[in-house]
Amino acid sequence: MRLRNKPGAKETILSHPQYILTDGSQWLGKWQERFGKSQPIHIEVGSGKGQFIVEMAKAHPEINYIGIELQTNAIIAILEKQIEEKLPNLQLLLVNGADLTDYFAENEVDLVYLNFSDPWPKTKHEKRRLTYHTFLKTYETIAKPEAELHFKTDNQGLFEYSLASVTWYGMTIKKVWLDLHTSDYEGNIMTEYEEKFSGRGERIYRLEAVFNGK
Amino acid sequence: MRLRNKPGAKETILSHPQYILTDGSQWLGKWQERFGKSQPIHIEVGSGKGQFIVEMAKAHPEINYIGIELQTNAIIAILEKQIEEKLPNLQLLLVNGADLTDYFAENEVDLVYLNFSDPWPKTKHEKRRLTYHTFLKTYETIAKPEAELHFKTDNQGLFEYSLASVTWYGMTIKKVWLDLHTSDYEGNIMTEYEEKFSGRGERIYRLEAVFNGK
Repeated sequence: MRLRNKPGAKETILSHPQYILTDGSQWLGKWQERFGKSQPIHIEVGSGKGQFIVEMAKAHPEINYIGIELQTNAIIAILEKQIEEKLPNLQLLLVNGADLTDYFAENEVDLVYLNFSDPWPKTKHEKRRLTYHTFLKTYETIAKPEAELHFKTDNQGLFEYSLASVTWYGMTIKKVWLDLHTSDYEGNIMTEYEEKFSGRGERIYRLEAVFNGK
Repeated sequence: MRLRNKPGAKETILSHPQYILTDGSQWLGKWQERFGKSQPIHIEVGSGKGQFIVEMAKAHPEINYIGIELQTNAIIAILEKQIEEKLPNLQLLLVNGADLTDYFAENEVDLVYLNFSDPWPKTKHEKRRLTYHTFLKTYETIAKPEAELHFKTDNQGLFEYSLASVTWYGMTIKKVWLDLHTSDYEGNIMTEYEEKFSGRGERIYRLEAVFNGK
């Protein structure tokens, strides 16, 4: 994602600790305390500018959402929305997705979303793909048994890779959509990327997979 | 598949027992004896008119192929090719794919091909899809541990279903192609359907999955 450096972003982040953390380690195992209500926690790894997580939080007040994003210049856009919306079921975390076990306890998370993750198409960058087995291990560690991973992308190569990677890891694929926008899937909330690419007629792929499935 | 009744088909079949069987039960566990050489056995369940299996047998003399097809009016077309070609590594079996355990011993098969299987799109017909779990169980019973299932289709719904079905069954997906004909997959041999549908610009989907994977 190409983003301009936003002046004052760091100050805005540091002055809103009720919405965003730059180090979540002190909340490990205690995330429910940061929300108005104790209810299932769904995280999105790589939230970008946050259209998905903000709209999901609005549409599903019965779920607590945590948007995780490494780039300050992206997450600031989510924070600005949240400063306006003040959603009680949305928290933001400015950290690297590879380090999630530093911020979440075992079984703390109910569902993991990956949306339009960087495809890292070169084989030598396979380890950076968010569906590489080391990432799956991280998600599994912090997720409840039989938690689900919901992944969507426009990138054919990343989707092909991910279908194999999750099953090789031992997950069960619950459902697959090979053209989400012409399917009967209801309640889809689009990311910024998704609006752009589907608007160009590109297919959107989606899968739901289960840890320790069956 | 719409096929005309071919006059004399039954007589042609019965007069070529060296190439085709209508009841393979007496060869259960002894299929290697029907081939010139003892080498890996690959079966295709639902061979149609046989372009795939005949061309595969020509291209891979190091493999013994068995084409299985329920419809007399389809398999007769394969038999006619074989009467001409006399391939030592091709056998035909006119039986129902659901009954394969009657014709093959445990561990007798090295690889199972499904090509452009009937999609049976209605949910009430799910049990007839060749990737339904009862069929997977049949293939697994006659296949070696870690044998592979190779499946291709132009049917999006059947492919979505099959990705989930094989993993739910406990298989591991080794590789997926979401647009086979624009991929770098080499050595693809097309079925009659595949030529027709890809000629119209339809995508061809393909997967390779492993029984008892890892």
